[in-house]
Amino acid sequence: MDVEKVRGLGDLLEQFQGTSIQARNLGRCLEVWENALRDPKRPTIFLGLSGPLIAAGLRKVLRDLVDWGVVDVVVSTGAVLYQDLYQSTGGRHWVGSPTADDVKLRDVYLDRIYDTYVDELKFEETDRAIGRITNEFPPRPASSREYLGFLGSRFPDPESILATAARRGVPVFSPALIDSSIGIGLTLHYQANRGKSERFLLDAVRDNYELVQILTHSPRTAVIYIGGGTPKNWINDGIVMANYAFGREGEGHFYALQITTDVPHWGGLSGSTLDEAQSWGKISRTATRAMAHVEASIGLPLLAGALWDRRAKWRGHPRLVFDWTGDEVEIRRRRRSAHRP
Amino acid sequence: MDVEKVRGLGDLLEQFQGTSIQARNLGRCLEVWENALRDPKRPTIFLGLSGPLIAAGLRKVLRDLVDWGVVDVVVSTGAVLYQDLYQSTGGRHWVGSPTADDVKLRDVYLDRIYDTYVDELKFEETDRAIGRITNEFPPRPASSREYLGFLGSRFPDPESILATAARRGVPVFSPALIDSSIGIGLTLHYQANRGKSERFLLDAVRDNYELVQILTHSPRTAVIYIGGGTPKNWINDGIVMANYAFGREGEGHFYALQITTDVPHWGGLSGSTLDEAQSWGKISRTATRAMAHVEASIGLPLLAGALWDRRAKWRGHPRLVFDWTGDEVEIRRRRRSAHRP
Amino acid sequence: MDVEKVRGLGDLLEQFQGTSIQARNLGRCLEVWENALRDPKRPTIFLGLSGPLIAAGLRKVLRDLVDWGVVDVVVSTGAVLYQDLYQSTGGRHWVGSPTADDVKLRDVYLDRIYDTYVDELKFEETDRAIGRITNEFPPRPASSREYLGFLGSRFPDPESILATAARRGVPVFSPALIDSSIGIGLTLHYQANRGKSERFLLDAVRDNYELVQILTHSPRTAVIYIGGGTPKNWINDGIVMANYAFGREGEGHFYALQITTDVPHWGGLSGSTLDEAQSWGKISRTATRAMAHVEASIGLPLLAGALWDRRAKWRGHPRLVFDWTGDEVEIRRRRRSAHRP
Amino acid sequence: MDVEKVRGLGDLLEQFQGTSIQARNLGRCLEVWENALRDPKRPTIFLGLSGPLIAAGLRKVLRDLVDWGVVDVVVSTGAVLYQDLYQSTGGRHWVGSPTADDVKLRDVYLDRIYDTYVDELKFEETDRAIGRITNEFPPRPASSREYLGFLGSRFPDPESILATAARRGVPVFSPALIDSSIGIGLTLHYQANRGKSERFLLDAVRDNYELVQILTHSPRTAVIYIGGGTPKNWINDGIVMANYAFGREGEGHFYALQITTDVPHWGGLSGSTLDEAQSWGKISRTATRAMAHVEASIGLPLLAGALWDRRAKWRGHPRLVFDWTGDEVEIRRRRRSAHRP
Repeated sequence: MDVEKVRGLGDLLEQFQGTSIQARNLGRCLEVWENALRDPKRPTIFLGLSGPLIAAGLRKVLRDLVDWGVVDVVVSTGAVLYQDLYQSTGGRHWVGSPTADDVKLRDVYLDRIYDTYVDELKFEETDRAIGRITNEFPPRPASSREYLGFLGSRFPDPESILATAARRGVPVFSPALIDSSIGIGLTLHYQANRGKSERFLLDAVRDNYELVQILTHSPRTAVIYIGGGTPKNWINDGIVMANYAFGREGEGHFYALQITTDVPHWGGLSGSTLDEAQSWGKISRTATRAMAHVEASIGLPLLAGALWDRRAKWRGHPRLVFDWTGDEVEIRRRRRSAHRP
Repeated sequence: MDVEKVRGLGDLLEQFQGTSIQARNLGRCLEVWENALRDPKRPTIFLGLSGPLIAAGLRKVLRDLVDWGVVDVVVSTGAVLYQDLYQSTGGRHWVGSPTADDVKLRDVYLDRIYDTYVDELKFEETDRAIGRITNEFPPRPASSREYLGFLGSRFPDPESILATAARRGVPVFSPALIDSSIGIGLTLHYQANRGKSERFLLDAVRDNYELVQILTHSPRTAVIYIGGGTPKNWINDGIVMANYAFGREGEGHFYALQITTDVPHWGGLSGSTLDEAQSWGKISRTATRAMAHVEASIGLPLLAGALWDRRAKWRGHPRLVFDWTGDEVEIRRRRRSAHRP
Repeated sequence: MDVEKVRGLGDLLEQFQGTSIQARNLGRCLEVWENALRDPKRPTIFLGLSGPLIAAGLRKVLRDLVDWGVVDVVVSTGAVLYQDLYQSTGGRHWVGSPTADDVKLRDVYLDRIYDTYVDELKFEETDRAIGRITNEFPPRPASSREYLGFLGSRFPDPESILATAARRGVPVFSPALIDSSIGIGLTLHYQANRGKSERFLLDAVRDNYELVQILTHSPRTAVIYIGGGTPKNWINDGIVMANYAFGREGEGHFYALQITTDVPHWGGLSGSTLDEAQSWGKISRTATRAMAHVEASIGLPLLAGALWDRRAKWRGHPRLVFDWTGDEVEIRRRRRSAHRP
Repeated sequence: MDVEKVRGLGDLLEQFQGTSIQARNLGRCLEVWENALRDPKRPTIFLGLSGPLIAAGLRKVLRDLVDWGVVDVVVSTGAVLYQDLYQSTGGRHWVGSPTADDVKLRDVYLDRIYDTYVDELKFEETDRAIGRITNEFPPRPASSREYLGFLGSRFPDPESILATAARRGVPVFSPALIDSSIGIGLTLHYQANRGKSERFLLDAVRDNYELVQILTHSPRTAVIYIGGGTPKNWINDGIVMANYAFGREGEGHFYALQITTDVPHWGGLSGSTLDEAQSWGKISRTATRAMAHVEASIGLPLLAGALWDRRAKWRGHPRLVFDWTGDEVEIRRRRRSAHRP
């Protein structure tokens, strides 16, 4: 490692590949991602998101990954997507302190996310806006993908992850959507529509079916996990569903990378090794994989910045087009290059 | 701390209360739980479950907590509940090794959970059984509580968490149920019933409404979080929903304890302090609360064993009866004592 | 795990051996320790201590381990031993709060150790007492073992680790002794004796030589690491020294257990696996070993309490007698049983 | 955070200052360091080193910090300095795997440091070289600073930390030097010189006295901790020694930053907050301070690279000259600028 010779983030991560411990691991994460982008079989690339990523200041980074076309499907906790919408409607994240007096913050309607504050009144306003706008969604059961695509189109902030995904046709799933402030908005809508025979209804299991659809129509898959949680577990479980439900011949994800602050020895899914997932067949026996132990506010900008620096390596990577008919999908490659230079 | 004088787990945790660091914290967790049990306002006690608790050997411990009546509502990841069912149908957890060769395990259909193996063929069998049995559920939208109550009654193993909860009338929710092998069974059911106008449908948002019902009908609430994840976030968020949706006057949870391996400084919800939740109003300004950093396979048996040792302190604690009418609930105290000695 | 059937800590840890994750690991730690105690070759058992163990309330537990004869040599950070002396001279550890205002504590001369306070004026008094009493030590170079044996005999509190070790003839080393408040006392002594041709002088390298002596005169060795730090590294390195300096035929430690809060993937010695130490030859190829990830205030009372509960298993275990001639040692077994019942 | 606009590491860390969680903390670490460098009182800047920093590939980075003049005194574990010498004598660190079979590595004399291998035979050769070369050191008691200065001058590799420090007159201390392979070399020397009335002898307590000298002759001090361990504790404790021994009027360190993977809630010194040190008076009441939770192989190149990018901000920073007379020191500023552009 020679910092006098680092000329950018691409350069830095290339140097990291020759060091050790977590710097090496992060360098390998870049390598795995780039390999997935250059694979001529054009794997479908899933991005799993958990943790306080918007509070961490990563909204633009995540939106860019979608916009550049280096990820094809997004699976996220509801909280990440909600805070994206909160900013779309003008909400702010303020610099705060992790040792603040929380009872005093309560008095002034500031809600704390570790070292960041959000505006509780604006949160309530956003929740109610979501509740109202849901009335414009067709009164029928729907997947989180359909509903989040709808929200993305209705909050068209160019800096927004959801809006960018909607514009680019990138499917966004949230398998635990009710567990978020979007869920609060949905609860307000539920309450207002309880009596009705026809109403919008989050048909959670349909998400699973649609995930299986994508998997079975992809020649190969790659997974990029920022944190663990429900998104990691669900994307991995999708392989098992695909095998059972469709007799798909059991190749797991072919490329896999994760940045995480969790550890394997607590036995949980979030921190479990990508090797462990091989025993389940969720990750392919021959997968290239890498896991770096670094918090996302540091790790993700390094990865994304290195990808951007080295974009010559994946320029021309074709985008995927998802043609949905109800809960079924066809996937094809778009001719235009992934990134418009 | 004088180990020559420890006469049982109740005694141990009492000694812990006079030490420091995580032993003291664990001792305080016991104190908070016991305070909740002795509060004459009879708070409703939520138990949030995440992590590999069944693999960790805690099935009987969790089932006992439900049976003793020291928790009133269970909110869990799907994985915990699934592995409960897997054992109800005869599935086993084997002692394994965290350094096993996962590709070899793949070949013999053993799936690894850190240092424990499960039987992949038995998993598939259980998934399919869940899929089939779901056909017997009424063909209509339902909450996870309704569905899990149904499963608990159909797999009546006395050692089972779900069966014990069903027998005791304890509501069990799983806000991310589709993200588990139960979700795989549900996907098989979805696939088989896609065309039908009437079918069972997991109405995820209804869970939120039912949670709000319980909160608004409880004079006070207590929360016990084993790990973090979706259960912690969802139970906490319930307070916000209750305030918005019902104009409930914003007291947060009045007792709160958590055992966790996560840390505050990653900024995520799982490791966030119970103080932070006060800024959101999710935990009451005046709540008694405690958080111990210890992995659940060690921490939970200590807590539960101490409760059991000291059961004279909460004997006579009345059970709650939940009378559901659709998605609405009335809660009353049962006269009989919580634990039949 | 069935907490209704736990009859004590011995029983608890036996149940832990049949569970998984860190409970199983802690159960295995007990097994390794008991195996070392029952080995007819009578291995020399090293206890390595680091972390805030006295603040954690473990003074009596550590003193008991020495008194029972289940450890033969103690290697510790200076801080643990210093706080032992601080209590011998009447110093107290008070229950404090980790979120206290440290600038206010400064004003009232309370020093914080996470959630515990100590008395700064009493600290200064103890430091000065150590400085003065050092004048009574012979004016020559000496090892930390000689010096700590001297301190143990001069502060004869029966609850003291150092005093109990002195009474029992258990060698105590502190390879980084200057890095502690004992070092402050020694600095005061150094300052007062700078000009003198003959003075007490901590001959640090002699510690290494004496460690090698013990290793080369032991048929086998066992290591018990509470935390990592300098004690773990130094006891492990001793094997390498013994091999180089004395052509000892390179068997590493034969039994090894550690409880730690550190993790392997940061690459440091404290969290490194006991397997890694095998590549260095520090741990024997055939060693039985176990590592549990649990903080010592919880983990050590469980281990020590289980040993005590099950003392019938190691009663009669002969103590070792260390006969020192300068920096050389002979080791023999004492006939009397380890523990006087 | 906008990775499309990052033009280098200086720029990256400036952006980090406006984000949150650990990225913000790392950005603040840079700010604290730069403030120390621009303080017209010219604080003496201590660098505390622990962890597998050479294995991590950071040798050149650490050597650069010394060479640039952005640190004035180095305090390190013995292992970091030993591996510096091992490379000076031609030793290599090889890319390995954390899941290697350690018994097989043992057979081929490869020693593993997490994911890196070192050459055991070359280690032994280096240890013996250190033992021999120590014969050329004056036969008298000496501090680790004197001895390490000697080693630095005898292994004059321009890429070496010790050699660069020797050339630049930067004092290097190692308060637990015997706990390292340098200690193994010293043990060989001890063994060969046991009988002699005059011999080199590591006078550990003299280190403390010399540290106090530096502190009492510095108008202000700054501390930069890479990891925790003995270096952090010792540099902090120096303040207490200085106050006792010299009636120095108790200002603690005025600037303090740490990057660490440890956490506060285990209660240990390595992970303790810089606030906690304020209660002890080790860190000034008014100190600017920052702590980032990131492993050093990632965190240190970012910090050092940002310093380098922004060197215009500290160019002209005068070096310190330490004039030692025995164990006493005078400190003055050198006129030439810190960095030769």
